[in-house]
Amino acid sequence: MLKIGIIGATGYTGRELVRILVKHPGVEISLVTSESYAGQKYSQVYPEFKGVFEQVLEKYRKEALSRADVLFSALPHGSSREKVPELLEAADKVIDLSGDYRLKDASLYAAWYGYEREGDPLLKESVYGLPEINRENIAGARLVANPGCYPTSALIGLKPLLTAGVAVADDIIIDAKSGVTGAGRTPKLPYHYPEMNDNFKAYKVTGHQHTPEIEEQAAGLAGEKALVRFTPHLLPLNRGILSTIYLKLKEPFTEEDLFTFYHACYDEEPFVRILDAPGLPETRYVMGTNFCDVSLRLDDRTGRVIVITAIDNLVKGAAGQAVQNLNILMGWPETEGLLML
Amino acid sequence: MLKIGIIGATGYTGRELVRILVKHPGVEISLVTSESYAGQKYSQVYPEFKGVFEQVLEKYRKEALSRADVLFSALPHGSSREKVPELLEAADKVIDLSGDYRLKDASLYAAWYGYEREGDPLLKESVYGLPEINRENIAGARLVANPGCYPTSALIGLKPLLTAGVAVADDIIIDAKSGVTGAGRTPKLPYHYPEMNDNFKAYKVTGHQHTPEIEEQAAGLAGEKALVRFTPHLLPLNRGILSTIYLKLKEPFTEEDLFTFYHACYDEEPFVRILDAPGLPETRYVMGTNFCDVSLRLDDRTGRVIVITAIDNLVKGAAGQAVQNLNILMGWPETEGLLML
Amino acid sequence: MLKIGIIGATGYTGRELVRILVKHPGVEISLVTSESYAGQKYSQVYPEFKGVFEQVLEKYRKEALSRADVLFSALPHGSSREKVPELLEAADKVIDLSGDYRLKDASLYAAWYGYEREGDPLLKESVYGLPEINRENIAGARLVANPGCYPTSALIGLKPLLTAGVAVADDIIIDAKSGVTGAGRTPKLPYHYPEMNDNFKAYKVTGHQHTPEIEEQAAGLAGEKALVRFTPHLLPLNRGILSTIYLKLKEPFTEEDLFTFYHACYDEEPFVRILDAPGLPETRYVMGTNFCDVSLRLDDRTGRVIVITAIDNLVKGAAGQAVQNLNILMGWPETEGLLML
Amino acid sequence: MLKIGIIGATGYTGRELVRILVKHPGVEISLVTSESYAGQKYSQVYPEFKGVFEQVLEKYRKEALSRADVLFSALPHGSSREKVPELLEAADKVIDLSGDYRLKDASLYAAWYGYEREGDPLLKESVYGLPEINRENIAGARLVANPGCYPTSALIGLKPLLTAGVAVADDIIIDAKSGVTGAGRTPKLPYHYPEMNDNFKAYKVTGHQHTPEIEEQAAGLAGEKALVRFTPHLLPLNRGILSTIYLKLKEPFTEEDLFTFYHACYDEEPFVRILDAPGLPETRYVMGTNFCDVSLRLDDRTGRVIVITAIDNLVKGAAGQAVQNLNILMGWPETEGLLML
Repeated sequence: MLKIGIIGATGYTGRELVRILVKHPGVEISLVTSESYAGQKYSQVYPEFKGVFEQVLEKYRKEALSRADVLFSALPHGSSREKVPELLEAADKVIDLSGDYRLKDASLYAAWYGYEREGDPLLKESVYGLPEINRENIAGARLVANPGCYPTSALIGLKPLLTAGVAVADDIIIDAKSGVTGAGRTPKLPYHYPEMNDNFKAYKVTGHQHTPEIEEQAAGLAGEKALVRFTPHLLPLNRGILSTIYLKLKEPFTEEDLFTFYHACYDEEPFVRILDAPGLPETRYVMGTNFCDVSLRLDDRTGRVIVITAIDNLVKGAAGQAVQNLNILMGWPETEGLLML
Repeated sequence: MLKIGIIGATGYTGRELVRILVKHPGVEISLVTSESYAGQKYSQVYPEFKGVFEQVLEKYRKEALSRADVLFSALPHGSSREKVPELLEAADKVIDLSGDYRLKDASLYAAWYGYEREGDPLLKESVYGLPEINRENIAGARLVANPGCYPTSALIGLKPLLTAGVAVADDIIIDAKSGVTGAGRTPKLPYHYPEMNDNFKAYKVTGHQHTPEIEEQAAGLAGEKALVRFTPHLLPLNRGILSTIYLKLKEPFTEEDLFTFYHACYDEEPFVRILDAPGLPETRYVMGTNFCDVSLRLDDRTGRVIVITAIDNLVKGAAGQAVQNLNILMGWPETEGLLML
Repeated sequence: MLKIGIIGATGYTGRELVRILVKHPGVEISLVTSESYAGQKYSQVYPEFKGVFEQVLEKYRKEALSRADVLFSALPHGSSREKVPELLEAADKVIDLSGDYRLKDASLYAAWYGYEREGDPLLKESVYGLPEINRENIAGARLVANPGCYPTSALIGLKPLLTAGVAVADDIIIDAKSGVTGAGRTPKLPYHYPEMNDNFKAYKVTGHQHTPEIEEQAAGLAGEKALVRFTPHLLPLNRGILSTIYLKLKEPFTEEDLFTFYHACYDEEPFVRILDAPGLPETRYVMGTNFCDVSLRLDDRTGRVIVITAIDNLVKGAAGQAVQNLNILMGWPETEGLLML
Repeated sequence: MLKIGIIGATGYTGRELVRILVKHPGVEISLVTSESYAGQKYSQVYPEFKGVFEQVLEKYRKEALSRADVLFSALPHGSSREKVPELLEAADKVIDLSGDYRLKDASLYAAWYGYEREGDPLLKESVYGLPEINRENIAGARLVANPGCYPTSALIGLKPLLTAGVAVADDIIIDAKSGVTGAGRTPKLPYHYPEMNDNFKAYKVTGHQHTPEIEEQAAGLAGEKALVRFTPHLLPLNRGILSTIYLKLKEPFTEEDLFTFYHACYDEEPFVRILDAPGLPETRYVMGTNFCDVSLRLDDRTGRVIVITAIDNLVKGAAGQAVQNLNILMGWPETEGLLML
């Protein structure tokens, strides 16, 4: 059994890692850390795990890291980069779920994250962990930068048309909507139940840190500069991201042609499902699962393609994808432990 | 125009007072205080009031109180008792929405609220402000103790059978369910959106401070000792309390007889609506209004009467009732400013 | 008192008309029709109106129409056109809340609504009832075509930049999200509670009938052809539309400049509120009210303006706007009966 | 692999059976029937199963039944009794999820279900399938009557005190609250999203058909007549039942004593979890799982014990329990395929 440590195990992403890994046939969780809840059993923090996962949480200590073969960092961005070098000393493989190792252009961090990342050699070494576009590189990585939730939903939608070179890369609009777990577990007024129940809003309309992540990877797919107008919104539900993506075509295609690009790209992918018209993704279809559902429509009148994707932000958008990366790292079947319903 | 001051105007109860009073034809709001938001316009705290109520919030200062003829205290219990004596010096009338002046038996406070109230002469002077059982005394009061939300829903349901002496007073069970605004506006983990969305639970199963309030007033109605088993629950919605009350009868009646007691008691009441069978209250029917909807069923098999009441916890359960009390104090029509839909 | 008749009074739009009109100081409701609930009191269909509005519903009969001075048709599109000619014979003024009289180009109906409207002289006569762009024409109208909910949220957002001629009219993207009351009151599987709770989805991605309505009016504002990519989505909440609008500028402006256009356009409008940055609309701020909240951001990187608007789909998006039009028709203050909170 | 047939596979209970059984290591689903959706793939009815379960639905035909070794009937009550005799001819074992075989006293059906069941020999033969009270009898059954959702939550809460003979059996009050999936998948106005969102209500306050089921089994546990006042309510969420049970004690105990009864009864049960004080069940802790969480409080003042239980109505309250019964019938580990999170 592979021994797994989860650093920062009591946020929603950490909880979701636990939910998936306790049932994964190839692993056992040997270490869970938390600064706030150290000394408590996991089931005291999350009573749904009573009788299922009773491990005691510990404060982060460098010495304890060696109890794990693979470490997941579910620390917030900004904190993760402070611990990952130590994690890599202790463990064979590290999967980091923060944003700290995702951008290859280190100069972007200052503007989008508010701190410097230039000069960190691990940034160059880390591998962007979206299996659907980077599976081969993930397999041999030491440090996997697990993608952001919004970028996952965006890039899976963008890949077929960008790699085929048929969509304009520098005029992409992504209107994305996420459930509230995406905002984390720290109580704050905007996420206080009565403030968000029955409510809907946009937030961070300019400046969301997932924008450069989408652009950098989209440019890689397109082989040219990508420019993305990305608008995140908050939905009154717990889990789910639906992204509505607006693309311009370089040359005319029928809707049927466009679906052909998607099927060619994804029919062998275990976690991407193409919904042919008249099907359309709904967040409930993917809730609790590692699937990304995708459909599209061509609007002949305006010449726009509308690509719609849905994921569970905590699974394919975070913990599920991290376990998918673990499976790739270990050479296991990619769906191992991930066929949840 | 009567000048109104609201002390502690930025909690949910304060907000609801503002919502009602800005449209009340007899008053103007001349003072709103807040320790956290002083210096900001009300519409900065609650943007729904933009263009409607733009008054600047002030820190509480004794000197400012004289700008109001009537003062509402929407401070939390424990804090209100520290300010009410000053409020009474400055204003003709004070309506206190906390629990600090509701219990006539001062000795109960230590056990149920965790602080002493013995020796406070205002406790004796204050008048319990449930118009449906105490209208005459409210009219001449200087200090009105506005009832708790749960007690309002319970006592309106209990009154007809207790005053008629047909229900057993010392074996009452009240299973009550409330929306999350009842827990206040301070962000805390149990009320963080993802923790309460799609969730339901009991809380404070023994020891809720509304228990002695219900018992004291129920005893007054029954003319004998009342004993109440009160279990509050939290609903995944913002506004509304539904109380399911279980009573034993001292002598046999038909369901029709029982409805007769309710009609006799409430047909002249402007804010109590009896739903005859097969009607049953639903929280949405009273949402945003000052109504208390009431129905009942007789269970012949077990000999129990089930009385069900519904209110909006912020309106009839707090701010609306406070304005109803204001109307009584001023000799205005009791429905003035309260016919909301 | 002006006598009002509501044809089709038991749908959500009809209910909202009743909610507003029972408190409007200038009118009384003299006729409410319903084919399904004829013979029942209004409060039997909607128990929240118990004690407030108890009028008996009647089947539609031509002879009864004369009991009203002004008639509102809240019939579905396709049905309204069959009755409106009769309504106009009986009443001085008719306000139609369906889509049947909104499009000036009759040829569009076949493609977008599925039925022919060519040759109907009332289509030409009817006046599009969005006060913020058409107040002068509404005042003298005999037949007002009350705008659609999505078009209201879109056109108020578009007007300042289109009338100023600074935004490109033929490349507009509107990503709109609506609460479930927009789908009407007839129970259907997609709106069955467990199917829509915690869910989010796009629908009618191509072909929503509000598209030509937005384009026709936007062209009027811009003085040139408008082309709109419109994507509606369904939110898990009852009331509210938030529209995220993506525009290209013809020439460079600062964000401050752009706000200036909006203030110039709307500072005198009673129901449009500009939220300056960092403010952003949220559906809860307008819930139950006739307000349209508007804000914008300029994305320098991509050259896009993002305009965000929020309305209550049943109020400013339907019944509230209809009453605003009534006020204009009668020469009353436009806010009469509409200052709801 | 054991071959499973599901009769009536497209209701919420049928869907939940599919969700559980497709991952159960010992079975394969060989037959799914539906009168409404025959000819469609399961994933067309429930798109979340795309790529996971694509079996084609068939109309019910007697001849097809032999394709299964074990048959689950997820037909509504009243319909199930018409098919179960045929199912028993075709298959070794039948698990019926309706109410048609649950009551041993056939005379109760006329009053509570509205149809006669007297004279049906299968009623006598069927075994009530609540493993926590009837495991031994289930093991050898040919026909298992899978319990109702409310009775499951009630009886697990009642058993320890009734079998110990310390609680009064003829004065039990159960105030139960259920999510909307309990009302089934047929669209009806009370379950139309806008009618139930943000709403809470009681329903069937007298006469719910689960009352005699609870009483009959409770009497069996107590060894004396049981009388239950049962009040069901509807919660604005999809899954979950929380039951608040009020009991009187025959003799005094401490709260600690009472917990001892529960631990003695359930510490070996794989699906019952006792939450010691201050823990309390919440519906979210059991969502999607086969657990029943239980806690209690003693109210010294009124002499009442309050027992609170929570289950997922579709899992432990229906499909999960049915699979637990399957495991018992087959002699498999009782948790096989049921350790969901």
